[in-house]
Amino acid sequence: MRAITIAEPGGPEQLVWAEVPEPAAGPGEVLIEVAATAVNRADILQRMGFYHPPAGASPYPGLECSGRVLDVGAGVTGFVSGDEVCALLAGGGYAQRVAVPAGQVAPLPEGLSLLDAGGLMETVCTVWSNVFMLGALAAGDTFLVHGGSSGIGTTAIQLAHQLGARVITTAGSAAKLAACRDLGADVTVNYREQDFVEEVRRVTDGRGADVILDNMGAAYLDRNVQALAVGGRLMIIGLQGGVKGEVNLSTLLTKRASVTATSLRARPTREKAEIVEAARNRVWPLIESGRFHVVVDRVLPIEQAAQAHLVVEESGHVGKVLLDVAGGG
Amino acid sequence: MRAITIAEPGGPEQLVWAEVPEPAAGPGEVLIEVAATAVNRADILQRMGFYHPPAGASPYPGLECSGRVLDVGAGVTGFVSGDEVCALLAGGGYAQRVAVPAGQVAPLPEGLSLLDAGGLMETVCTVWSNVFMLGALAAGDTFLVHGGSSGIGTTAIQLAHQLGARVITTAGSAAKLAACRDLGADVTVNYREQDFVEEVRRVTDGRGADVILDNMGAAYLDRNVQALAVGGRLMIIGLQGGVKGEVNLSTLLTKRASVTATSLRARPTREKAEIVEAARNRVWPLIESGRFHVVVDRVLPIEQAAQAHLVVEESGHVGKVLLDVAGGG
Repeated sequence: MRAITIAEPGGPEQLVWAEVPEPAAGPGEVLIEVAATAVNRADILQRMGFYHPPAGASPYPGLECSGRVLDVGAGVTGFVSGDEVCALLAGGGYAQRVAVPAGQVAPLPEGLSLLDAGGLMETVCTVWSNVFMLGALAAGDTFLVHGGSSGIGTTAIQLAHQLGARVITTAGSAAKLAACRDLGADVTVNYREQDFVEEVRRVTDGRGADVILDNMGAAYLDRNVQALAVGGRLMIIGLQGGVKGEVNLSTLLTKRASVTATSLRARPTREKAEIVEAARNRVWPLIESGRFHVVVDRVLPIEQAAQAHLVVEESGHVGKVLLDVAGGG
Repeated sequence: MRAITIAEPGGPEQLVWAEVPEPAAGPGEVLIEVAATAVNRADILQRMGFYHPPAGASPYPGLECSGRVLDVGAGVTGFVSGDEVCALLAGGGYAQRVAVPAGQVAPLPEGLSLLDAGGLMETVCTVWSNVFMLGALAAGDTFLVHGGSSGIGTTAIQLAHQLGARVITTAGSAAKLAACRDLGADVTVNYREQDFVEEVRRVTDGRGADVILDNMGAAYLDRNVQALAVGGRLMIIGLQGGVKGEVNLSTLLTKRASVTATSLRARPTREKAEIVEAARNRVWPLIESGRFHVVVDRVLPIEQAAQAHLVVEESGHVGKVLLDVAGGG
């Protein structure tokens, strides 16, 4: 088969659509003929050499895919050849075929195209596990998500809005903020022109946000803590603004608040299966009733993965940049 | 009645045993004739002017007491005059009488003297809420508590040990470390001579601690995060080592770990009642079966509150410094 390989750590030009060995379905695994995958920031870090795949994972990029079941390994029930599915991967989505533990595979939600489903799992599972499972966002709570126009952002806005939270989001242009409002954001903040701490306080009568989903890390750490409500939970899932952050612990203590940082990729298979099951139970009904969709910025053929990485690196997109592997979904 | 008043913010000499107005049991409150109270670090901060009582709380120091019920306000059930009780207070324990919401009052555990019960509630509720409720320490987990010979430390060691966790603790002298081992600590670290991060890693085969209870704040923040296990929870309840801390978020993210800072005093009455109920359900049986006791460093009469503060400020004590208010319990 072919897969996108990384010739050596570096720029997008290092992504090469090359012939590689075929994967096989090991015990407990499902082998998928990939229809589509999508670009995540972790893929770019992996390409640059900053984010090594966990032990045992595929060496090719790609944290999610859609496709059809080709084969199942020993002990797998619930899937048969030909099933249309989507999957959360530890790597290997940028390929024609990929083997994945069955607990990370889900049937395609009704009404979602096989192509769009290629950009569903990574963001839905990241948002669900952080915002709802660990962060315990509840109806009536105030939720702040940074980078509202990203794949994570467009997913988080829709889910939090549909589940009854008040959504505040930041983005860097009027067009992106408008897109966020269309998805259900109640309050939008242009981070180039406004101070998000002041805005959060202003629109919550000084209360702050119950849950914050952050991709900026150190650059926003202290301000995020300032923007938290009493009992608030700051969930950090990206470090685009650096690694070493200063925090005022007196503010954190006065608020009885917490800072949690997580990544999905390195979690044990068992935890991923729990997250996928929770997503199926809670998000699939929203998709099937038309209340949640995958926001697609554009679709590029897998051979143009380098161009797709450039789009995400330049942050000109809104939603997911999909990679069509099967040639038309 | 008399109470310890704070003449003006400053040293122990500002504590004056003075005549003050009588409190009364408001709706939902219990009026207690205080037998004993105890010194907590928050009392010292309050005396210095750094820690103001929450709105509506007594202006006098004292976050816990034991005593006898004198009166109950409208709507209070479960307590009658003469009951021996102990209570978690938002203030006012350094006084002959104090009124407190009924949810923060508990019957005396069998086998515990009325005097010792004066030093029970603040540390038990702080440890229970942070280590077990928020921190979710489980049997088989590794638990690190700093300052093992303090009131919090001696409580945390006993509870974690009795509930099946492996306990590592730090203290500053051989005598204090021996006292910690007597209470159930499996591993003791002299922080003046050893690096606790190295010791935690060494005795856990590099795994780290699942829960850390910290009173040092900024000074230990980065090292505590280094000492956490994957999925670990750092619970900060004191800032004796400063307020502004630096943390490596990449380490936190790789470990999928959290940092939470809390205080008990400012929590809503409803939350305090939940904590007191949980402590009654889980800790009272340990007391009544002889598996947990209040470690008492010394008992001083309430008129010598200044001397008692000095003892705690100089950190020469092991366990609680009690104040006898009734003159003999």
